[in-house]
Amino acid sequence: MADQQKKFVESITPRDQDFTQWYTDVCIRANLIAYSNIKGFMVIKPNGYALWENIQKNLDDRFKATGVQNVYMPMLIPENLMKKEGELVNGFAPEVAWVTSGGTEPLTERLCVRPTSETLFSDFYSQDVHSYRDLPRLYNQWCSVVRWEKETRPFLRSREFLWQEGHTIHETAEEAEERTQQMLDVYADFLSEELAIPVIKGRKTDKEKFAGAEATYTVEALMHDGRALQSGTSHYFGDKFARAYDIKFTGRDNKMSYVYQTSWGMTTRVIGALIMVHGDDDGIVLPPHIAPTQVVIIPIQQRKEGVLDKAHEIAKALKDYRVKIDDTDRSPGFKFAEQEINGIPIRIEIGPKDLEVGKAVICRRDTREKIEVPIGELPVRVGEELERMQKEMLERAKEHLRTHTFEAHSREEFEEEFKDTNGFVKAMWCGDQACEDKIKEEYGVTSRCIPFEQENLSGTCVCCGRPAKKMVCWGRAY
Amino acid sequence: MADQQKKFVESITPRDQDFTQWYTDVCIRANLIAYSNIKGFMVIKPNGYALWENIQKNLDDRFKATGVQNVYMPMLIPENLMKKEGELVNGFAPEVAWVTSGGTEPLTERLCVRPTSETLFSDFYSQDVHSYRDLPRLYNQWCSVVRWEKETRPFLRSREFLWQEGHTIHETAEEAEERTQQMLDVYADFLSEELAIPVIKGRKTDKEKFAGAEATYTVEALMHDGRALQSGTSHYFGDKFARAYDIKFTGRDNKMSYVYQTSWGMTTRVIGALIMVHGDDDGIVLPPHIAPTQVVIIPIQQRKEGVLDKAHEIAKALKDYRVKIDDTDRSPGFKFAEQEINGIPIRIEIGPKDLEVGKAVICRRDTREKIEVPIGELPVRVGEELERMQKEMLERAKEHLRTHTFEAHSREEFEEEFKDTNGFVKAMWCGDQACEDKIKEEYGVTSRCIPFEQENLSGTCVCCGRPAKKMVCWGRAY
Repeated sequence: MADQQKKFVESITPRDQDFTQWYTDVCIRANLIAYSNIKGFMVIKPNGYALWENIQKNLDDRFKATGVQNVYMPMLIPENLMKKEGELVNGFAPEVAWVTSGGTEPLTERLCVRPTSETLFSDFYSQDVHSYRDLPRLYNQWCSVVRWEKETRPFLRSREFLWQEGHTIHETAEEAEERTQQMLDVYADFLSEELAIPVIKGRKTDKEKFAGAEATYTVEALMHDGRALQSGTSHYFGDKFARAYDIKFTGRDNKMSYVYQTSWGMTTRVIGALIMVHGDDDGIVLPPHIAPTQVVIIPIQQRKEGVLDKAHEIAKALKDYRVKIDDTDRSPGFKFAEQEINGIPIRIEIGPKDLEVGKAVICRRDTREKIEVPIGELPVRVGEELERMQKEMLERAKEHLRTHTFEAHSREEFEEEFKDTNGFVKAMWCGDQACEDKIKEEYGVTSRCIPFEQENLSGTCVCCGRPAKKMVCWGRAY
Repeated sequence: MADQQKKFVESITPRDQDFTQWYTDVCIRANLIAYSNIKGFMVIKPNGYALWENIQKNLDDRFKATGVQNVYMPMLIPENLMKKEGELVNGFAPEVAWVTSGGTEPLTERLCVRPTSETLFSDFYSQDVHSYRDLPRLYNQWCSVVRWEKETRPFLRSREFLWQEGHTIHETAEEAEERTQQMLDVYADFLSEELAIPVIKGRKTDKEKFAGAEATYTVEALMHDGRALQSGTSHYFGDKFARAYDIKFTGRDNKMSYVYQTSWGMTTRVIGALIMVHGDDDGIVLPPHIAPTQVVIIPIQQRKEGVLDKAHEIAKALKDYRVKIDDTDRSPGFKFAEQEINGIPIRIEIGPKDLEVGKAVICRRDTREKIEVPIGELPVRVGEELERMQKEMLERAKEHLRTHTFEAHSREEFEEEFKDTNGFVKAMWCGDQACEDKIKEEYGVTSRCIPFEQENLSGTCVCCGRPAKKMVCWGRAY
C-alpha cells in the first residue's frame, strides 16, 4: 500500500471502535466539511455541497409536484413580531442570535436571525390573503437558519444550518391536516427511495412536539450505532398562528374565518443520516440516486497507449450517468482509496490488460464486488449495478432497522434493552408526561414518536403499570 | 373592458409619466415582491422567486462549465476576522448588521451578518491550501447578504439581497487576472443571451472600485429611463487578502508564495434591470429564455364543448416549452391583462370559432402581434416566435443603448447632455480623481466605467482641460 493511501485509510478511526470519532473523521476525510473559526459554524465544502444540491433538487421537484411554490422571506425578525405567538417565542428564545445595531446606529428594536419563519409567513399571509379564493397558499423557502446550540457536531447540530421550510395555509382544518400528512409522506418516500434510509413514521408526544404546534409528525431513522435521528418533521398548527397574527379570509359563507396552517422542514442533517446509516471503515457510501458522482473511471498505467483514450470513450458511452475520469498523476491505489472515502458508488478500472481482452472491471463501493464486463456492455451493466446497489443499500438498512427494533413489555425489559444496546424500543404508554419524563431521566432515552402503525404489546404502561393508551417508540437520539 | 381588468391596468402608473412609481407599481402588480414589516427588507413572492431560480440555474451552469464548485460559508463573521483587511472593513463598516448576543448570553465578540465573504473565504483558504497542487480553487456560493442601506427600493437596493459570490485563488497573477475577465464575460454573455440586456464592459475608476480590490471590472446596463445600472462586478485582489489572511502555498520552486485572488458577484438586482429595460405601461416583459412560464394558453368560452380538451391537447404538444393553461373561471379579458402584467412571452387564445377552422391565435407580449396558426403547426411556430422575440428584445435594447449613448468633447457638451436627458456620456478624462469628484458634485453623475473599447474623442480632459488619459463612460446610476 502506498504511503498516501495508507495515510488516507489509517486516518479514519474504525467505526465500531468509536462511532463518534469515526463520524467526525469521515466528514473531514471525505471533504464534506471543514471547521470554521466561528464556534459552532461549519464550512460546507464542494463534496458536501454537491450532495446538498442533489438533495435540494430532488426534494424541490417532489414539493413542486404537489403544487408548492418557492418564495423568500427576510432573514431578520423584529422582536415584537416574534413575540406574538407565546409558545413559539418561549421555545426559541434561548437559542436565537440578536442583531442590535445596523451600520453605525443601535437599532430601536432588536431583530433576531430567523431560527424558523412561522412568524414571517404568518405576518405576510395576514396581509396577502383576503378570500377563500386566495387559498390554499403552498409556499416553501430554501435558506439558512441560526440556532445558538451549545454542543455542535457537523451536519447534526450546528449554530447555522441549511434547510427548507414549507408554510401552508388552508380553508379547512381537514385540508391542512391532509397537507401535514402529505408532506410527511414526501419526506418518508424521499428518504427511502433516494437516500435508502427506511423510517418510522409517527406523531410526537406533546412533550416533544414543536413549540406552538398542535401536532408534530416525524420520520425517525436509525443510525448504524443504534441511535435515532429525527430526519424530517411536519407540523399542524390549527388556527393558532392565524389567531395570533390575524390571518383571516372571507369564506364561502361570506363570513370571516381564520386559516388553518402547517409547516414542514428538512435540513442538512439528512447528510449526517446518510453518513451514519451507510458509511463504513473506509469512508462514506453514497446511494447511487443521490451521489454527485456515480461512477469514477480509474485508468491503470494510464501512460500506456490507448488507456486514456479508452477511458474517455467509456465515459462518453456512460453519458446517462454522472461520471468522472480520474486521470491525475497519483497512483491507482491512491485513487481507489479516495473513491472509497468519498463513497462514489462505482469505480471502473481499465488498464492495458483489460484493453487486450476488451473488458473492464466494475467495483461496487458497498460490496467491493469486482465484476469483469465486456466494454460494450458497460452502459447496461453500470445502470443495472447502480440500481441494484440502491436497492440493496435500502434492504440492508431495513434489515438493520428490523434487527435493532425491540419490544419491551415491562419496566425490566425496557431497562434491559437499553442497557447494552441501542435501537428503537417499542413499549406501551399511559399517555402521562410524568412517565415520559421519568424514562428520559432514568435511562437517557426519549420518546421518538407514537408510530402510525400501532401494536397492542400489552395493556399497561411500561413505566407506571397503569392502563396503556398508545405504543411509543423510544430511542437514544442525536 | 371588465372592471377587474380595468383595475389591473389602471393601477400601473404610465412609465413615461413617473418611471420610479411605474417601477414600484409593476413590481407589486406582477406579484414579484411584497413589502415586509421589516424596514428595508422585502418578501420575494412566487413570480419573483421563480425568475430568480431560472437566473440561478442558468448562471450556475455557466459557472460550472468553467470549473467552478459551490460551497457554503458561515453567515456570521467575527469582528476580528473582518478587521484583518483594513480597506474592506472601512468600506463595509457603515453598513453591516451586528449580532451581539446568542441565546440568553451576550457574546464576547460581536459578529456581523456577512455583507460579502472575502474574509471567510480567505480564512478558509489559509487553512485549506498548502501546495501549488491545491490550486486553483474556484469556489462560489449562493446566499443572502445584509447591508444596512438607508434608502431602499425593490430588487435595486435592499437591506438583504440574494446573490452569488465567487471567490477564487490562483498560483499566478496572470491566471487570477484571466479569471476576473472570464467571469466578467460570463456575466456579459448571460445578460445579453438570456436577459436580452446589452452591456458596456469596463474597469471601474479607483474611486468607484470595490473596497480592498486592486481592480474592479463591471458590466453596466442602461435602463429605459436612461439611468445606468451596475449589473455585475468582478474583482482582482492581487495578493492583498493573501497577505492579510496569510494564504500561502509551496510553489513549484519549493518556496512559499502568496496566492492571487478574485471575487465576482451578481445579485437579485438583475431582476430590477430586466423590469426597467423591457417593461412597458402594461407590466413586465420577460425574455423567453428566462421566463418561468413561456406560454399561457387561454381558452375562450371554455365551457363550450371541446375547448378545454383542445387547450390541454395543445399544452401537451408544446411539452418542450414551459406552458400553463389558465382555466380559472375569470373572463378572458382579465386573463389577457394578467398575462401582460406578468410579462409571459406568448399567449395562445383558443375558442369555439378557432376550433371550427382548426386554428389558434398566438399573441406576443412585446409586440402584441396576433398571428393565426393552424393548430398542428403550433409547436414549430411557438418555438420560432419565442426565439424571434428573444432576439428582437435584445435588438431593441441595443438600439436604445445606442441612441442613449452620447459623446461629449467639452465641459459644455457634457453639461448639455446631462441637462435634459439621461444616458451614457462618453468623455475623455485626465485620470485625476479631483475631476471625477467635481463632475459628480456638479452634475450628480458618476463614472460608470473606463470601457474596454476605448475611443480617442479628444486630447483633453472634459473637466479640467489637461491632457486626457482615458475615455470614461458617465451616467446617472441606480
